[in-house]
Amino acid sequence: MSVSPFDHPFLSGLLGDEEIADYFSARADIRSMLVFEAVLAEVEGRQGLIPPDAAERIAEVCKSFEPDLESLKAATASDGVVVPDLVRQLRKAVGGDASGHVHFGATSQDVIDTSLMLRLKAVVFVLSGRLFAVSSALSKLDARFGSNRLMGRTRMQAAIAITVSDRLLAWRHPLDQYRDRLTQESFPLQFGGAAGTLEKVGPQAAAIRGLLAQALGLTDEPQWQSQRARIAELAGLLSMISGSLGKIGQDVALLAQAGDEIELAGGGGSSAMPHKQNPVAAEVLVTLARFNAVQLSGIHQSLVHEQERSGAAWTLEWLLLPPMVVATAASLRHALQLVGMIKRLGTAKE
Amino acid sequence: MSVSPFDHPFLSGLLGDEEIADYFSARADIRSMLVFEAVLAEVEGRQGLIPPDAAERIAEVCKSFEPDLESLKAATASDGVVVPDLVRQLRKAVGGDASGHVHFGATSQDVIDTSLMLRLKAVVFVLSGRLFAVSSALSKLDARFGSNRLMGRTRMQAAIAITVSDRLLAWRHPLDQYRDRLTQESFPLQFGGAAGTLEKVGPQAAAIRGLLAQALGLTDEPQWQSQRARIAELAGLLSMISGSLGKIGQDVALLAQAGDEIELAGGGGSSAMPHKQNPVAAEVLVTLARFNAVQLSGIHQSLVHEQERSGAAWTLEWLLLPPMVVATAASLRHALQLVGMIKRLGTAKE
Amino acid sequence: MSVSPFDHPFLSGLLGDEEIADYFSARADIRSMLVFEAVLAEVEGRQGLIPPDAAERIAEVCKSFEPDLESLKAATASDGVVVPDLVRQLRKAVGGDASGHVHFGATSQDVIDTSLMLRLKAVVFVLSGRLFAVSSALSKLDARFGSNRLMGRTRMQAAIAITVSDRLLAWRHPLDQYRDRLTQESFPLQFGGAAGTLEKVGPQAAAIRGLLAQALGLTDEPQWQSQRARIAELAGLLSMISGSLGKIGQDVALLAQAGDEIELAGGGGSSAMPHKQNPVAAEVLVTLARFNAVQLSGIHQSLVHEQERSGAAWTLEWLLLPPMVVATAASLRHALQLVGMIKRLGTAKE
Amino acid sequence: MSVSPFDHPFLSGLLGDEEIADYFSARADIRSMLVFEAVLAEVEGRQGLIPPDAAERIAEVCKSFEPDLESLKAATASDGVVVPDLVRQLRKAVGGDASGHVHFGATSQDVIDTSLMLRLKAVVFVLSGRLFAVSSALSKLDARFGSNRLMGRTRMQAAIAITVSDRLLAWRHPLDQYRDRLTQESFPLQFGGAAGTLEKVGPQAAAIRGLLAQALGLTDEPQWQSQRARIAELAGLLSMISGSLGKIGQDVALLAQAGDEIELAGGGGSSAMPHKQNPVAAEVLVTLARFNAVQLSGIHQSLVHEQERSGAAWTLEWLLLPPMVVATAASLRHALQLVGMIKRLGTAKE
Repeated sequence: MSVSPFDHPFLSGLLGDEEIADYFSARADIRSMLVFEAVLAEVEGRQGLIPPDAAERIAEVCKSFEPDLESLKAATASDGVVVPDLVRQLRKAVGGDASGHVHFGATSQDVIDTSLMLRLKAVVFVLSGRLFAVSSALSKLDARFGSNRLMGRTRMQAAIAITVSDRLLAWRHPLDQYRDRLTQESFPLQFGGAAGTLEKVGPQAAAIRGLLAQALGLTDEPQWQSQRARIAELAGLLSMISGSLGKIGQDVALLAQAGDEIELAGGGGSSAMPHKQNPVAAEVLVTLARFNAVQLSGIHQSLVHEQERSGAAWTLEWLLLPPMVVATAASLRHALQLVGMIKRLGTAKE
Repeated sequence: MSVSPFDHPFLSGLLGDEEIADYFSARADIRSMLVFEAVLAEVEGRQGLIPPDAAERIAEVCKSFEPDLESLKAATASDGVVVPDLVRQLRKAVGGDASGHVHFGATSQDVIDTSLMLRLKAVVFVLSGRLFAVSSALSKLDARFGSNRLMGRTRMQAAIAITVSDRLLAWRHPLDQYRDRLTQESFPLQFGGAAGTLEKVGPQAAAIRGLLAQALGLTDEPQWQSQRARIAELAGLLSMISGSLGKIGQDVALLAQAGDEIELAGGGGSSAMPHKQNPVAAEVLVTLARFNAVQLSGIHQSLVHEQERSGAAWTLEWLLLPPMVVATAASLRHALQLVGMIKRLGTAKE
Repeated sequence: MSVSPFDHPFLSGLLGDEEIADYFSARADIRSMLVFEAVLAEVEGRQGLIPPDAAERIAEVCKSFEPDLESLKAATASDGVVVPDLVRQLRKAVGGDASGHVHFGATSQDVIDTSLMLRLKAVVFVLSGRLFAVSSALSKLDARFGSNRLMGRTRMQAAIAITVSDRLLAWRHPLDQYRDRLTQESFPLQFGGAAGTLEKVGPQAAAIRGLLAQALGLTDEPQWQSQRARIAELAGLLSMISGSLGKIGQDVALLAQAGDEIELAGGGGSSAMPHKQNPVAAEVLVTLARFNAVQLSGIHQSLVHEQERSGAAWTLEWLLLPPMVVATAASLRHALQLVGMIKRLGTAKE
Repeated sequence: MSVSPFDHPFLSGLLGDEEIADYFSARADIRSMLVFEAVLAEVEGRQGLIPPDAAERIAEVCKSFEPDLESLKAATASDGVVVPDLVRQLRKAVGGDASGHVHFGATSQDVIDTSLMLRLKAVVFVLSGRLFAVSSALSKLDARFGSNRLMGRTRMQAAIAITVSDRLLAWRHPLDQYRDRLTQESFPLQFGGAAGTLEKVGPQAAAIRGLLAQALGLTDEPQWQSQRARIAELAGLLSMISGSLGKIGQDVALLAQAGDEIELAGGGGSSAMPHKQNPVAAEVLVTLARFNAVQLSGIHQSLVHEQERSGAAWTLEWLLLPPMVVATAASLRHALQLVGMIKRLGTAKE
């Protein structure tokens, strides 16, 4: 299917991002969920909560288990989450006594949120690298054209002359800050059990959680099942990234319209006017900025997360966050391409 | 890929809608775009704008033409729209002199917007039918339980007793109104050429446009390339539908939490608590309502559509509208299912 | 206070609208609420639900009653609505036996929603007139400069030449449609009592409601206490108006930046650059369009209106709708001013 | 005027916040802008950019200058910003040669953004204190009722029993984090001149800016006229605060509806049902959370801030940020009140 352009056979060329979309594939999600179940079993085996050979068996099966997707789909439709059926299928694959020890003490949200964190951690690393690439490309542009004259414009009117460096600094500075911020993001394990109290795990709960976090390469924090601020925080940062790139896009589109202060290589073709060179990447940066700004509102709506777990609020995150991540990735991709297309910026001083 | 749950191998079971998602497949879009090109050639052939045999050849090829998707994807990435490459491929398939008459007088936006209208017209018919089904199911519920007593609740507190009929009327009445509204929606052809003036078509422009509209089963209206109110209008209606269904979902979830005034068959399972019956459909209705309410904001942002065609604003619609349509469809699907699960509502009067 | 620029001593000059803001003053609201109470008493007196002399006394007092605002404020803080204290104060002013017949059968929401409808009806009439004024001003512009040449621009690039008439049509056409839509809006009475069933009014409920509606000049409809689609509908229309005016603003700002195809009289001054003429009205149109597009999202969130009355969802409307109305009014004010400032559009054909 | 409930004679009792609204009064804004002009003159006098006695005279006049508000309002309507007229009035009040040295090297945005930062710094201090108060009140509740049993609820269904402490931790933990975050916020001076280059100030620009920042108690940073991430950052934090408080409100409303696990003192009255005790503060917390979630979207839209200064994007911030701040303040006020109203939470264990 291709309801969203991010998943669309041809629109994804423009709006999607293959590298990052991979992290949101069903395969990647299932793989991460099985890693959680495997590590959970291992840690619980080591701590004596489940028999060591059961733990070994579960971890072994998780390595290569391929669940029946049709069954997952049907079950998700009625359960609202994929985990009950995934665990059921996994138990069947594990078989024997060990099957009863699968998923011990955990709940659906532990599996799903942790899978998300595992993947977001990897994604943020990639985005951070792209921010660096865009920033570096802007630095190179600065080295080449920084001393050129550019008409400073305020309120859509010519104001006073500035240098290309001045403009580039306003483009680059926020990106460098975002990279620092991304670096500081932490990605915590989710592990709380049915209602956040790890009631089945007992007195060892904190120790188990710590070991789980360590094994998964995630931060050890108390469960945050109904506390979604970290999702809002990250989504806000994504939207700030695409917002600042959208500013660059808008600026380039305005420069391209005026035509005298920028020279761009390439540009999009038109079906009606073969002579045109449309600043497509610049426009798409504006589109993606506005898209993320819209989605962010829903992420914040889902902070009103009632009781120990809100199906309504949590599911809303699923609809909003992956598209925001991919929009940000696509935005960085276009920004890098656009900066690379700039053959001249400003006008040389005499 | 599966960035969006609407397109996701297993999450689409919960949040997607197969019937409606089909209309947003690349295949359906391409098919509709080729219908536009075929009918355009036929009409222009009949009116003497292009040679009749060229028209025939073009229409013939369009019937079965299967474009190279990889090429479309790569071209969309740089052109910002799929049409230039689609037309290029189509011309090659048509071959000979006729190839030069493909897409005569039209522009990318004519093709893409018209394809959207063709599909939305069909989609709205389906949604209208579903609204009727939900409304009918509510009527049946009313026939069975309407005279039961229900505690009227205001501001989350018991107020005075009402009847089940009173509550059901508040659920059903908006749906009936939306159905009337959907029925009144018109779906216009888009046909304006490069900058909306149909400059290549000449004095016959209005006649050609009328014939095109007639042949496509769409309304004949002057081009609306930069006037996006009808998109906003339809999106608003979709969000009102999911909003009113979200109210039903919220009400059912609250009834299910209290437990004494509703009996539901089925419900979602839990991985940690096998005894639970979660009102998943009710929650998802709230999720989808909030999702659409969020997206609508972006649709209205894209009303600021600069000059004769805004790549930035138009592309934003592509990201927002198809998910809204599918969210609405999924919402109707869940509502119908949820109403069907109600085995008792209210308490019988003594 | 002046938290919102719409209410601000000096920012309201730019962003507010005195004529329309008046309808949202506490005074106007109280006046309309008292009209409701007076007419309710009169109708109920005539129909024998309350003693005729009580009705007369109530109606008489309502005419000139000035409630204690400090008391209303304190009571609203704890009751969440102003009506309980307003009714209490009104009863005291009425005095004697008649006081017990004030507000008979009604609830807070009946008073507040009806007061809103009375004022929105008047407001929409004004907005409709302003739409006509803007449309007429555009027509005059068309008469003067319509045949001038204008560079058609798509995707922020010069495309082909069009005429000023072509651009003006895209500006004017949506406005004419919105005026038709505004004319079709209906403004219904709200009258449902405690939980929507008018349980105190008894068998005469429908008759009383009809008479009330007639006396108030509102449409007679069953109560819509938890059905907020008409609020969403109107808000959507307001946002479409400001959205289309935002498109005009954006176009003018782009024309003003290029400088050769438009001549504007006046423009805003700058504290740093006395020579500049900023197209302030054009920019503010974009601001107000984006503002309304944002608010609309919240109005649709409030469609999820639980049970018979949601304090949370209803109160959200209060925060969003009046600013949207005033933003739309300010938008129309600026549009009229901006069109009036255009001294030349396009370039004369040789 | 009272378009916004935050400014409304009686609705502000419910939705506004007097202490914080004061910081957004015209008076407070003007006072802060004059502080900027005074300190600017002093610093520039000390550094020899303007004559010392002119600096003294300007600083002296700024202390008590009361501008003509009607004139400011009229001028803002055409200039789009208040500063040109404020400076004009101030120059007149200063008189003589000194008048020409008022506002030297600065631009409207320097004055307005700096005034905002001065006030936000003070506001954030107050909000931080309120967060502490709410957190402390929750701790006290924990001390009293923490060991009580509470039914843990997931997906709107009873799950397993937890303790009141468990729930309270999920309420309190985010608030403590937000307080840390607020403490880390920095409030930078804005000082860039006409197009961000401080071209009039010359080689001393950085020194002057540092001295200005020091004198104003703000952070010294390069101008951020078109880089609005810090506004988005702060707005996101505000929305997270109200979002987490909205979760508390939703939880309390649900507890109050069920009725057995909470006992509340007080509650709102009803005009139709005197017996009711509405959990008004709980509902308003949800309202304010959703309000801020909506506004945040617009703040992020304004990140697309074209060129050196976007009138459209910047003005949008003015419409959105002050209401967000006051909504957050009101939210904290209601939360503190609501927690104080809880007379019992959970049920004592046997």
